[in-house]
Amino acid sequence: MSSFRIDARDGSARAGVLVTPHGEIHTPAFVPLATSATVKTLHAAEVAALGYEMVLGNTFHLFIRPGHEHIAHMGGLHEFMAWRRPIITDSGGFQVFSMGHGSVADEIKGRRGQRESRILSIDEEGVRFQSYDDGSERFMGPETSMEVQAKLGSDIALAFDECTPFHVDREYTARSTARTHRWLDRCIDWQRANAPEGQMLFGIVQGGVYEDLRIESAERVASSDVDGVAVGGSLGQEKAQMHEVVEWALRPVREEQPRHLLGIGDVDDILHAVAAGIDTFDCATPTRLARHGTALVPDPEARWRLDLTKPEWRESRDPIAAGCPCPACQEHTRGYLHYLARAKELTAARLISLHNLTFMGLLMKQIRDTIQEGEFASYSALVLSGQGPY
Amino acid sequence: MSSFRIDARDGSARAGVLVTPHGEIHTPAFVPLATSATVKTLHAAEVAALGYEMVLGNTFHLFIRPGHEHIAHMGGLHEFMAWRRPIITDSGGFQVFSMGHGSVADEIKGRRGQRESRILSIDEEGVRFQSYDDGSERFMGPETSMEVQAKLGSDIALAFDECTPFHVDREYTARSTARTHRWLDRCIDWQRANAPEGQMLFGIVQGGVYEDLRIESAERVASSDVDGVAVGGSLGQEKAQMHEVVEWALRPVREEQPRHLLGIGDVDDILHAVAAGIDTFDCATPTRLARHGTALVPDPEARWRLDLTKPEWRESRDPIAAGCPCPACQEHTRGYLHYLARAKELTAARLISLHNLTFMGLLMKQIRDTIQEGEFASYSALVLSGQGPY
Repeated sequence: MSSFRIDARDGSARAGVLVTPHGEIHTPAFVPLATSATVKTLHAAEVAALGYEMVLGNTFHLFIRPGHEHIAHMGGLHEFMAWRRPIITDSGGFQVFSMGHGSVADEIKGRRGQRESRILSIDEEGVRFQSYDDGSERFMGPETSMEVQAKLGSDIALAFDECTPFHVDREYTARSTARTHRWLDRCIDWQRANAPEGQMLFGIVQGGVYEDLRIESAERVASSDVDGVAVGGSLGQEKAQMHEVVEWALRPVREEQPRHLLGIGDVDDILHAVAAGIDTFDCATPTRLARHGTALVPDPEARWRLDLTKPEWRESRDPIAAGCPCPACQEHTRGYLHYLARAKELTAARLISLHNLTFMGLLMKQIRDTIQEGEFASYSALVLSGQGPY
Repeated sequence: MSSFRIDARDGSARAGVLVTPHGEIHTPAFVPLATSATVKTLHAAEVAALGYEMVLGNTFHLFIRPGHEHIAHMGGLHEFMAWRRPIITDSGGFQVFSMGHGSVADEIKGRRGQRESRILSIDEEGVRFQSYDDGSERFMGPETSMEVQAKLGSDIALAFDECTPFHVDREYTARSTARTHRWLDRCIDWQRANAPEGQMLFGIVQGGVYEDLRIESAERVASSDVDGVAVGGSLGQEKAQMHEVVEWALRPVREEQPRHLLGIGDVDDILHAVAAGIDTFDCATPTRLARHGTALVPDPEARWRLDLTKPEWRESRDPIAAGCPCPACQEHTRGYLHYLARAKELTAARLISLHNLTFMGLLMKQIRDTIQEGEFASYSALVLSGQGPY
């Protein structure tokens, strides 16, 4: 019922089709976040109209609110949010552990320890924590995560893992990764016995920034009874290290296994990861940046970001990006968007979200096309030099 | 260049066409608020796609931010917000005086005096006040208001008035109304000499809830060199009083003069006012309610409101309103919208805004159609009994 087919290869890059109970995803694909059962500011039909074939639902947030039982009662996540195409759900591990570790962004920005931990205990069983919604005590372990994802009815479930943070040492990483592997076995056992028909299960490769741990983790995951492999955890502090970590994590993965890269969405990172053999990506960045007034543009030196709230755009009558088919670019000026973003008008968040998702959608389509044509390397160079996707 | 034509009459109700420099408005019409140069959560092309022919821009807010000079520099309000259909601008009087008086809602809810007044002085010249944006001292009088509206380039300008509050006595109302009339003359003088070609000017009838003052004010306004008459100020605390006040205010107005009712948008009030001969309405309610999770529905007993945040909708798989063509109703359940609204997702504000504007658009279209058919009274009875506009 579910499968992965590679249609074209260009170096290690591949173009293919993931077939799931709710339809096909043409890869390489970017997967917008529908964290809380909505791609923020858009409704489901609009996301489909942008050409996206899959969204990512957040197991942890939906477990807390409105609850997986409620969503199941409403017909499952697809029906609940009226998105009838494929859904991938993360495992909840990242969010559960973020409550204790802080997020990677917290770490890099030196905010670690400034937030109160809501984790009550972590042991072999799983994690006990306080709900951010009502303060009640909740528990999530491998079986819970699988059960929640089963109730949500996602097409691709991710195994429950500890997302090892960046600041921990090798020993912590090794112990944590070993536990993630034991949890993977429990996820496989539960999921194979109880999951909705056709739901795929991807295991998550951890191992931090340590070459041997990453390769060992990837071997362990890739040789388990999984339908695909996701690369998670800390990918390092710098781009060069990230590219290395991804390469290590993919080394033991068999070619026919689909590969997802968790939480990565910068243009250059996507190009590098596609070249390394990644098939799917999810990332909050395009929609989160949009809500803060930043648009994606073909400008590598600015990390493909244009901060529309900056005073220099106040009088601009140019569009965000010439040639972009989105309504923000077809109908509006940078000056107007600057004004709306500074006035915190919802229309700004929405127009820039539409723009950023249009940008990402075009980029991924051109990546797929150029892999098919055997021209991916030169397309990648073009984008990295500031040309494309327009 | 600008004109008003009545095409059909049904009792005192009329269906017609307002012709302005940026196109026609078929009346009776509801005018959505684009307070800060955007109908909140929507971009201009979407408002046009909903069938609306005119929006209302807020002179006071746009004067404060981003400033009328800036908007003029960007090509005027139509170009700035990419809305190339007619725009009516209010005079700023309501907002300027609200800073001192508090709003009508404040009064009714007993909040008067709880907010610090930002008014520094009111005299014959106009009002001196502190900007909410940067605390700077600003001034607005009749000429300022006209100049701002000229720079914005609206199709219909409103004369600068004091919106007399509800709590003041007859003597205050009489003095204030007389000053509003003197200000009207100054608005006419400035506007006739300086306004963009074809811009219409509507005078505002004040007089509070006092029959003689209302009629006197209406006589004064209707016999001035204005292109139309707007009914403003306190319309009373109860519906019955409001209907009376509107009737007094229209009594001296010539039939060929277009009539706008300021700030009124409840379904029953619109039906009564149309029956009394009002042509256009503006109101924050449909979009403001939407942002707080309340949808418009054919339910007179609930004042046409459905609060989607109420627990009773949590498991509902019904649409907001059967037969409604909006995306919220065509694609989503009350249960999902309940969840989104409680989670304060922007998608909720947006979907319910689309619904409420669809509801109002259909209502006004059916009002126009039934006036044309001589069936307005029975249509009105139908809607008041909970049938229609679906």
